[in-house]
Amino acid sequence: MTQKALPISFLSDFGLADEFVGVVHGVLAKLAPDSRVIDVGHGLGRGDVRAAALALTRAIQYLPEGVALVVVDPGVGSERKALAVETGWGYFVGPDNGVLSPAVAMMGGATVMVSIDNPEARIPSPGETFHGRDVFAPAAALLASGEAAIRELGPELGPGEVQPLLLPLPETEGNMVVGEAWWVDRFGNVQTNIGPDDLGAIGLSPGSVLTVRLGATLHAIPWVGAYSDVEPEQSLIHVDSAGLIAIAVRDGSAAQRLNLSSGVSVTLAGTASTEAE
Amino acid sequence: MTQKALPISFLSDFGLADEFVGVVHGVLAKLAPDSRVIDVGHGLGRGDVRAAALALTRAIQYLPEGVALVVVDPGVGSERKALAVETGWGYFVGPDNGVLSPAVAMMGGATVMVSIDNPEARIPSPGETFHGRDVFAPAAALLASGEAAIRELGPELGPGEVQPLLLPLPETEGNMVVGEAWWVDRFGNVQTNIGPDDLGAIGLSPGSVLTVRLGATLHAIPWVGAYSDVEPEQSLIHVDSAGLIAIAVRDGSAAQRLNLSSGVSVTLAGTASTEAE
Amino acid sequence: MTQKALPISFLSDFGLADEFVGVVHGVLAKLAPDSRVIDVGHGLGRGDVRAAALALTRAIQYLPEGVALVVVDPGVGSERKALAVETGWGYFVGPDNGVLSPAVAMMGGATVMVSIDNPEARIPSPGETFHGRDVFAPAAALLASGEAAIRELGPELGPGEVQPLLLPLPETEGNMVVGEAWWVDRFGNVQTNIGPDDLGAIGLSPGSVLTVRLGATLHAIPWVGAYSDVEPEQSLIHVDSAGLIAIAVRDGSAAQRLNLSSGVSVTLAGTASTEAE
Repeated sequence: MTQKALPISFLSDFGLADEFVGVVHGVLAKLAPDSRVIDVGHGLGRGDVRAAALALTRAIQYLPEGVALVVVDPGVGSERKALAVETGWGYFVGPDNGVLSPAVAMMGGATVMVSIDNPEARIPSPGETFHGRDVFAPAAALLASGEAAIRELGPELGPGEVQPLLLPLPETEGNMVVGEAWWVDRFGNVQTNIGPDDLGAIGLSPGSVLTVRLGATLHAIPWVGAYSDVEPEQSLIHVDSAGLIAIAVRDGSAAQRLNLSSGVSVTLAGTASTEAE
Repeated sequence: MTQKALPISFLSDFGLADEFVGVVHGVLAKLAPDSRVIDVGHGLGRGDVRAAALALTRAIQYLPEGVALVVVDPGVGSERKALAVETGWGYFVGPDNGVLSPAVAMMGGATVMVSIDNPEARIPSPGETFHGRDVFAPAAALLASGEAAIRELGPELGPGEVQPLLLPLPETEGNMVVGEAWWVDRFGNVQTNIGPDDLGAIGLSPGSVLTVRLGATLHAIPWVGAYSDVEPEQSLIHVDSAGLIAIAVRDGSAAQRLNLSSGVSVTLAGTASTEAE
Repeated sequence: MTQKALPISFLSDFGLADEFVGVVHGVLAKLAPDSRVIDVGHGLGRGDVRAAALALTRAIQYLPEGVALVVVDPGVGSERKALAVETGWGYFVGPDNGVLSPAVAMMGGATVMVSIDNPEARIPSPGETFHGRDVFAPAAALLASGEAAIRELGPELGPGEVQPLLLPLPETEGNMVVGEAWWVDRFGNVQTNIGPDDLGAIGLSPGSVLTVRLGATLHAIPWVGAYSDVEPEQSLIHVDSAGLIAIAVRDGSAAQRLNLSSGVSVTLAGTASTEAE
């Protein structure tokens, strides 16, 4: 139990208006005084499990190996379990609502999963349990400091005993790929669930002009290598910094121009004679 | 003067749009390079001394013993004193407007109080004094690093020489408890100044349906143990995670539904024949 | 290469809604695990190079010597260079768009400047380069940890090869000083580019009532030493905490009252017979 203190990466939907994030930091500082804490973000939509899962998946390979603490928990107070998961990357701690699943899978899957039930691993509350403060932060801190092994936090769970997260996969239909928008960043860039390989499989490559179907509207947008390959204010398709096909507008907002938001269906195909818009 | 560096917990109303919080962090890093700094929150309402005092009171027991630095200071530039307070928990540094008082009381009261008047403990400003940067941060850093003892910061003050904060206490009138809403969190949960003991004293206990009077309107709301004890979208009363009676809506906002904001009067009583709304 | 790890001060326009800031912190934690990281601010206007340059200039003397990492980069994807600059204060890392220039000048000027071109100093991206994550953060971390000397990051640049930032200087015309508003803080205080010396040169000093011309409107506003020298709700001119002439309203917003925003022309002169408004 004399390992070096592990860093803790903390993601939540608490926002920064109240002291919730600060109180969790306080608990971490008390129980894991030698661990560095990284705020991955706290501005996610309230209770948006999918958005949190995707943000964690995009971030995880850039976070130092250690403990990921995720508190996005619309089911707080219900019977959902509190999870601690061991992987090759390190530990994941959060509610059993699927929010951890894609990042755990990306890091090679779980080697151990437990339900954080051990009352000694919790902080007693003067009232309603504040799970971030009383359950998840103590578990993360105990794992990060090496004060507890994961199996000391509670009973082990089998693979069928935790909630998966069903993320939609893109589908190829003839010479089209049907996917969806799954993240709009603050700059209005729209990330889809489509990868460059999906487009390669229907014969498309950078340099092609794509036909983008959004609802009943068709747009012709070039697939380029960089923003600077189009003029300012022009639409483009590119492989974004997470490795996924994204729609953007140079110096502008694709979400605004194309009226796109998370969850909207996006169909991509080649184009023979169409000009770029 | 070779103590271990104390952690510093920092609460302000600076917001995060400008570089104010960052500059205070810079001063702390320069003068207390070995102290961990925890941001308790910076999104409080501008100059809302009561909200800051309550946030600090809710947070303090979860923060590592050390230095609490609080800069919520509507009277900046006036004659109000700059305080440093020693308690059994550690040190509190902030303006003499009552913002520190409830947390200091909760931590057992002040053992030493001084007015931060020593010019050597301040950073000279090129213009108007930025108290957070030039007075409070240096004092917090000197205490945290052990570079100064509290009495070196300025002359000692007696108990009658500092501003108290008058927080309203609930009152029992016959079989009713009259209190008020004093915090609405970002989820719309409404914390009152009423404790479960106040309700116990008029014969109420969890499981009761309470009559809640807000202005001229009566609501019947059950006192339950957890959110999951009511259906989604239903109102509930419970002991919140700070140990106080709160009004909430499962998966919703009580503040919005009941038109409640901080300071509104809340009267609670039992109910004989009323059904829950 | 066994220097003590340098602290890193990080300023961006990423906002806190997404995980961008967190991912950059992750990269810093991985590559410079012993460096303290200070968030100077992330809430600046998107792509507002001048606002970021001014914020950095106001903050820099309060930040611990080390590395300043600035990612405000409207030209991302274009041919602009990625810069690392050595000064007497420490290192500055950011895009070559002028954002670093005023702070570098204030810290005594550059002793070495390089274009961060060495592919070994970058993180390979699965798609579009995320410059904050893949170029600037690694360079900052390598300098902070001592893993790379600045000349290892890429070819050296001469003074004429980097973008300056043209900040407007105030001009004296007869007995008037013509300047402009260049920062409105969250409290509505309006900082100008005029210094107290500029006013001294036309015979004005604290205690004077100034004539302030904004567009076609004249205001008479007293130059005072502190907010408390005027009544609540009254306008005042003072030397602000950055050492510049600023227009403020005690317990109010000068920006709102006088309809002032960044870039608006402000002319100051003395007044013979005018009363303060």
